Amino acid sequence: MRLKRKDLLTIEDLARDEIELILSTAESFKEVSEREIKKVPTLRGRTIVNLFYEPSTRTRTSFEIAAKRMSADAVNISVSTSSVVKGETIRDTAKNLEAMRPDCIVVRHAAAGVPLMLARNLNCPVINAGDGAHEHPSQALLDMLTVKTALGRLEGARLAVVGDIMHSRVARSNIYGFTRMGAEVTVAGPPTMIPPGIERMGCRVTHDVDAAIKDADVIMMLRIQLERQKDAFFPTAREYSGLYGLDEARLKRAKKDVLILHPGPINRGVEISSGVADGPYSLILNQVTNGVAVRMALFYLLLGGAKEAA
Amino acid sequence: MRLKRKDLLTIEDLARDEIELILSTAESFKEVSEREIKKVPTLRGRTIVNLFYEPSTRTRTSFEIAAKRMSADAVNISVSTSSVVKGETIRDTAKNLEAMRPDCIVVRHAAAGVPLMLARNLNCPVINAGDGAHEHPSQALLDMLTVKTALGRLEGARLAVVGDIMHSRVARSNIYGFTRMGAEVTVAGPPTMIPPGIERMGCRVTHDVDAAIKDADVIMMLRIQLERQKDAFFPTAREYSGLYGLDEARLKRAKKDVLILHPGPINRGVEISSGVADGPYSLILNQVTNGVAVRMALFYLLLGGAKEAA
Amino acid sequence: MRLKRKDLLTIEDLARDEIELILSTAESFKEVSEREIKKVPTLRGRTIVNLFYEPSTRTRTSFEIAAKRMSADAVNISVSTSSVVKGETIRDTAKNLEAMRPDCIVVRHAAAGVPLMLARNLNCPVINAGDGAHEHPSQALLDMLTVKTALGRLEGARLAVVGDIMHSRVARSNIYGFTRMGAEVTVAGPPTMIPPGIERMGCRVTHDVDAAIKDADVIMMLRIQLERQKDAFFPTAREYSGLYGLDEARLKRAKKDVLILHPGPINRGVEISSGVADGPYSLILNQVTNGVAVRMALFYLLLGGAKEAA
Repeated sequence: MRLKRKDLLTIEDLARDEIELILSTAESFKEVSEREIKKVPTLRGRTIVNLFYEPSTRTRTSFEIAAKRMSADAVNISVSTSSVVKGETIRDTAKNLEAMRPDCIVVRHAAAGVPLMLARNLNCPVINAGDGAHEHPSQALLDMLTVKTALGRLEGARLAVVGDIMHSRVARSNIYGFTRMGAEVTVAGPPTMIPPGIERMGCRVTHDVDAAIKDADVIMMLRIQLERQKDAFFPTAREYSGLYGLDEARLKRAKKDVLILHPGPINRGVEISSGVADGPYSLILNQVTNGVAVRMALFYLLLGGAKEAA
Repeated sequence: MRLKRKDLLTIEDLARDEIELILSTAESFKEVSEREIKKVPTLRGRTIVNLFYEPSTRTRTSFEIAAKRMSADAVNISVSTSSVVKGETIRDTAKNLEAMRPDCIVVRHAAAGVPLMLARNLNCPVINAGDGAHEHPSQALLDMLTVKTALGRLEGARLAVVGDIMHSRVARSNIYGFTRMGAEVTVAGPPTMIPPGIERMGCRVTHDVDAAIKDADVIMMLRIQLERQKDAFFPTAREYSGLYGLDEARLKRAKKDVLILHPGPINRGVEISSGVADGPYSLILNQVTNGVAVRMALFYLLLGGAKEAA
Repeated sequence: MRLKRKDLLTIEDLARDEIELILSTAESFKEVSEREIKKVPTLRGRTIVNLFYEPSTRTRTSFEIAAKRMSADAVNISVSTSSVVKGETIRDTAKNLEAMRPDCIVVRHAAAGVPLMLARNLNCPVINAGDGAHEHPSQALLDMLTVKTALGRLEGARLAVVGDIMHSRVARSNIYGFTRMGAEVTVAGPPTMIPPGIERMGCRVTHDVDAAIKDADVIMMLRIQLERQKDAFFPTAREYSGLYGLDEARLKRAKKDVLILHPGPINRGVEISSGVADGPYSLILNQVTNGVAVRMALFYLLLGGAKEAA
């Protein structure tokens, strides 16, 4: 089985059956990471390049581990100390990498659209590992897998996404993904951080977090970039926390057994309290575990396994 | 055979038979690195994460090569350009890594106690690759292996450790290790650099290097951090060298065939002269070779081989 | 088949039959990178260390991918954040690495002669991945492979090398290589950037780019370091481009079907126009593809395959 597309760039352009294929494939790869010998030979002899223009521990590591568990060779390129300094264009860097015949390039960049531009210029599959405030599709896929596993379904699920919606590629990808799968999405956050017209993406909007979480099956708290404070997006971390953060007191206003997600890294005591992050309803670490499985599935579905080649 | 503990955090809490098990296992792995095909399949499909919060060429490389020679997948994370910037706690970084199901996390950190804190919070084995001025257990194990190989025994051996004892995790781990194995340890160095009460660790103390090395079977010279000069720990590199450094003239006051160790990287002409470092009694490069074998042994004994799994 | 030398340090000291052996071996490895499973088991269990003292995306990645396609383990060491800070000598860093029993060390350094110094001090093979303005032999080998593949021969081929000859290790290695193989080499560039006496290397010299390219079969454009402008090597990028750059207008003065090379990374619109770089005569990406094959061949010829060991 393979995705009928060369690249994975956005959730926006994924059809429902494509998302279902990715999630079910990821489910089947989850058990590999629970084995003693966490490796399948499927992508032996393939080369996967992680081309990261933004620093990242967790996402790069997740893609690298996923590649290795598929028996692929992973090559990490962290750009900032390298050719960018020398003034080479991103397209040239990527064309040069492609000339070394990788089987897939995973790219993260601070500018929206870079993965698309590369995908159009390269013959090999490109995976978007986060581009500016645009999309972070593998994150949304792992979030959907986490909710589907915990809730048994996505159809009809009620998701509240809380925080800095405007700058969040995680929020955008998840709004596209969850609505596509038939879930109801409500976004909540400071008026300065909700882009006007976001309702057109198919979600509801509120500035009242309590209203957003009241009937939610799943609450997804977003990371607040503390450095945005100086740009006057919010007054102080304490005030942000009081108005938009999730602590145990606020959690009581949500449904019993509501599920808590956060893409990480978390700011404890700011957008989420430690009690909630480490509490019984938190699926934050499940998200990370599912991230490896989703990325294994993406490599499998975009590159094709060895069996297909036979 | 396996160590009956989850983690390797200190030499202090290792029993003599545990040290003996590690050394004998390391001895059996030494020949792997002398083969043309330097690889055993023992840990195929295991993932080992090197999580380094301090820069390091040699220690990180040694752990990485050890992992690969055991056929494990090694994932390097050098933290400083990554989530630390984003304000994530070390515990959260580690919990997130653990959720990706590594089989072992090797951690180095400038703060004493970080490996212990992680070990208490993680289910997977944690190896301390150096924590502040606390311990560097794999270094002491490779030092003991080097002395045992050269001398035939550790029991009754006389070891002089010379230099900045106070700030040295290498000194602390070796004092614990060598005394535990029945060796006699004398420490020597500037009065400003010997912590009061260190005799309680079971070693003798002197400020006279000549007295310390006179009857020693083994001299371990410690690296002096030249930047400590500005904190007035010692007046000048030249004076330090004259009083506490080891050159060929001073070496004549030691026993014939005394063995010379240094954990590296060495400051030539400061704590050790080139003649001594490169001379016939120097085991400095043997230490490095033994380091790979010790780390292969630690991975084997903490993770268990594939045969055990069967 | 093996090279009868321990190291690959320069093109200067390679005999014609050695270059021929490397090129024909590289030709045979080219198809590995075109397979679905891009891996041969030849160097399984060997450890190749990439020791880079200068940042590099493409060269380090090319060596890393070459190593992995030969099934060797690749260990990357990027020095600047590590022991150099601590004041260790390069020789000591390398001796320490050697004590971990790598099978080959690939080294790049800003100072000419570092690879030679290491080769003399180490028992394991050393490959020069670029040393100052001295040599970059694997680059010249991939350039020769590219020309030989496109032209069918090197003997009698006419090569024009245009740009900053003085500071270019690529130019030096190629002058040695192409003249050794019987090609005719002409160098052209600003008078400030052509070292006096370079004719003694066996090439012709001109300051007139049009004259240099008129009869050339191959034009190799060199990267101009824009930061040299402030050292008064050339007045402005625009003037440099007009006098010494290659655009479509100038290309018309060259032979029909002339081949264009550039070692990358390119400065579009400075030493080469986008029309030429991306045009039908450009072999720039072929060079990159051939680079992986040349490096696989070097590992094979210096380390020996598993079959030989049997």
